[in-house]
Amino acid sequence: MIKLYYAPHTCSLASHIALEDAGAEYSTVRIDFATEEQRKPEYLAINPKGRAPAMVTDKGILTETPAILAFIAQSFPKARLAPLDDAFLFAEVQAFNSYLCSTLHVAHQHRMRGYRWADDPAAIAAMQRKVPDSVGSCYHLIEGKMLRGPWVMGETYTICDPYLFTIAQWMEQDGVDPSRFPKVRDHRRRMSERPAVKRAIAEELA
Amino acid sequence: MIKLYYAPHTCSLASHIALEDAGAEYSTVRIDFATEEQRKPEYLAINPKGRAPAMVTDKGILTETPAILAFIAQSFPKARLAPLDDAFLFAEVQAFNSYLCSTLHVAHQHRMRGYRWADDPAAIAAMQRKVPDSVGSCYHLIEGKMLRGPWVMGETYTICDPYLFTIAQWMEQDGVDPSRFPKVRDHRRRMSERPAVKRAIAEELA
Repeated sequence: MIKLYYAPHTCSLASHIALEDAGAEYSTVRIDFATEEQRKPEYLAINPKGRAPAMVTDKGILTETPAILAFIAQSFPKARLAPLDDAFLFAEVQAFNSYLCSTLHVAHQHRMRGYRWADDPAAIAAMQRKVPDSVGSCYHLIEGKMLRGPWVMGETYTICDPYLFTIAQWMEQDGVDPSRFPKVRDHRRRMSERPAVKRAIAEELA
Repeated sequence: MIKLYYAPHTCSLASHIALEDAGAEYSTVRIDFATEEQRKPEYLAINPKGRAPAMVTDKGILTETPAILAFIAQSFPKARLAPLDDAFLFAEVQAFNSYLCSTLHVAHQHRMRGYRWADDPAAIAAMQRKVPDSVGSCYHLIEGKMLRGPWVMGETYTICDPYLFTIAQWMEQDGVDPSRFPKVRDHRRRMSERPAVKRAIAEELA
């Protein structure tokens, strides 16, 4: 059975929602970032990267949100969480999720995780100051060119939706005004009304 | 027919090699980063992100290296560039490529593209100073935990291999000594001997 290691308020929520969407049987384990549980030997044995999420499956352990989301979509085809029969459409899904992990999430990380890329406190502060601009630029692109509506890929809900929703939770803290991006804001509201999303959030914040 | 927009010395080489591996019929268009061709309206009409690679297919345009690589693997199944029939093994491939795009490539980008995350020149210089450490940490993980050998996924060559090879070209410029990572160094040498790799590089540098 699937076991998801997650940390509240991190991108692991996307995988958690997708498991709910899929109707999967799974259990969860909470990793406490406040006590740096992700850097302890017990967790590093599961995920040497020391990050969330990690997902234990019958075949082994998976990390990286885009990979976990694609695995869930492929493992529960009846849930129709990705266009599995069309390599181009599937690649569009992967491209969106790849942009989130490599560009939008990375821009966001410069607010709280600047120490990954500089040691100087003044440099870390300079990174924090630019987050509203760098994260805002990503949403500008998503709003104008990528989010088709009502779901990311258009009429059909996919694994792009819980991922965008998860990261879009952080807009205000990143200094980005959601009213500048009405399509993203409406998508967030639409997602928050889904029972699967409510269940995942309720468990993580319980 | 497939058309690949690439820029020399960027991650687009991975997709270029994979097209050669696949035996695909394709053409290429070089984007000149020196003259900022990637920010001109003609190219932004193809890829609004203003980055390389972009791949034009019969069905539309794809961006993001992990998505393009998966598309090539799925579109040319006879080339056996990914374990297409096993969702877990496919997810392992995706997880590796996701790590490259979201962590290793991002660490590298702080050497030349620090302006994306800070405006202060001193902060940008501080980022550059940390690149040997942050990029080196990624290779430490790849060497110890991820690269199975002889290929990334073990005995079978996959779309992980051209991607790692492409990024590993930048080790020395990133201030990382390849002799610290013999498995990565040997993988680079093994890749460089493949005719498909030689053809892609020869075209890009011609």
